[in-house]
Amino acid sequence: MENKFAFGKKIIKEAGKFILSRMFAPVTVETKSRFDDLVTSLDKETQDLLVSRILDVYPEDKILAEESQTNASITDDRVWVIDPIDGTTNFIVQKSDFVVMLSYFEKGVGKFGLIYDVVNDQLFSGGPDFRAQLNGNPLETYESRPLNETLIISNAGMFARNSHGVADLAAQTLGSRTYGSAGLSMSRVMSGKAILYTSCVYPWDYAAAAVIGQTLGYEVLTLSGEQPDYQTRQEIMFFPTEEKSIIQTYIH
Amino acid sequence: MENKFAFGKKIIKEAGKFILSRMFAPVTVETKSRFDDLVTSLDKETQDLLVSRILDVYPEDKILAEESQTNASITDDRVWVIDPIDGTTNFIVQKSDFVVMLSYFEKGVGKFGLIYDVVNDQLFSGGPDFRAQLNGNPLETYESRPLNETLIISNAGMFARNSHGVADLAAQTLGSRTYGSAGLSMSRVMSGKAILYTSCVYPWDYAAAAVIGQTLGYEVLTLSGEQPDYQTRQEIMFFPTEEKSIIQTYIH
Repeated sequence: MENKFAFGKKIIKEAGKFILSRMFAPVTVETKSRFDDLVTSLDKETQDLLVSRILDVYPEDKILAEESQTNASITDDRVWVIDPIDGTTNFIVQKSDFVVMLSYFEKGVGKFGLIYDVVNDQLFSGGPDFRAQLNGNPLETYESRPLNETLIISNAGMFARNSHGVADLAAQTLGSRTYGSAGLSMSRVMSGKAILYTSCVYPWDYAAAAVIGQTLGYEVLTLSGEQPDYQTRQEIMFFPTEEKSIIQTYIH
Repeated sequence: MENKFAFGKKIIKEAGKFILSRMFAPVTVETKSRFDDLVTSLDKETQDLLVSRILDVYPEDKILAEESQTNASITDDRVWVIDPIDGTTNFIVQKSDFVVMLSYFEKGVGKFGLIYDVVNDQLFSGGPDFRAQLNGNPLETYESRPLNETLIISNAGMFARNSHGVADLAAQTLGSRTYGSAGLSMSRVMSGKAILYTSCVYPWDYAAAAVIGQTLGYEVLTLSGEQPDYQTRQEIMFFPTEEKSIIQTYIH
């Protein structure tokens, strides 16, 4: 597994370089489900690059990826979960605040996760057999703090609608932030910069953080308190397990 | 004025170094108007540092500053507007996403503004006689784009309440972000990363961006479309003048 982890780190950095080299060139933007659900030609090219690198070295492995037509199931034997550009809208409009995410699962068990903030060259990595790190420096496990000394990070619409009590929880904290990238947001949670992230997202948006985070005391649940299904788009939260009961006082 | 502008840049960098040197030491946090309106001992010390540097060199000048008991009026002859730490909550919880802001006015006319993102060492500067720059590189004047290719940055509560139509405008764009620092947010607008910033803020929160922004085609108005008063806390927006009529279709 150590080789595979090193390989993952190598190709995610390569994907980052690829994005940087093309970031200011014209990209084709297409809409997916609605006008504000976007994908660029670079999302697809970056995914193709990662998939081809993986299948070159591990031809038997399977892929669960954002821009795929057909996808493996998370319970398959050896599955790479890929989000080539998480925060595509930020990528298009801001040229910052986006990440590449990669994680690896065997029969539903996460082995390692990688979140790469390309513009800031920050790589979050970890898994059950690898200490969670940011650019090689160990991340600290969660240390409990009262809600009123923290922030939450939320999808703007879910905060506005008080979906499942998100705004009720936010009102107990110092406020809510919205960054537009699941990976970036969950990295901030794992860095102690916010107590919770919530949004309505797909497996490739939370898989890497779920794997890295569990070694630091964090977990992903749906807002109803269930395990995420690693298949459909769901309203999820990423938070420290130690605060589960107080968080579920507000979010249920 | 060139000397004063250079002096302003020198002391804002000094303030940044001062904050960095004390950032991870214990700070005293006090609440102001309510539990989530915070000030730290470092806000006050940083303001004291800036005020003492200014009055050493320009003993006749006046001060309009966040942590002051008494303040000059913006229409006074020579006024420095100071926000020692804008984004105090981010500073406390995240140790990032905060800025120092400094601007200089004569009889209500802005002469230069400075916004310093301390952690990322990014200094936005400019004024009517100084080309707007980021770390010495010229910033581009606003280039028109359709709303549906942009983002807005909003205070989370104002978006949630659809205050003055903020959410109606957001619905025409690719979405809303919330960063928790006025200066950081307005810097993003001036960098073309969002079309509008809106929040409920004080003069020291918008003065610097107003002065830098006007040379790039941006302005500050209240959400009712009036000039801000540079005295009280008001709901304001910072946006490109060229898009005023389309923005005011939604925000009024």
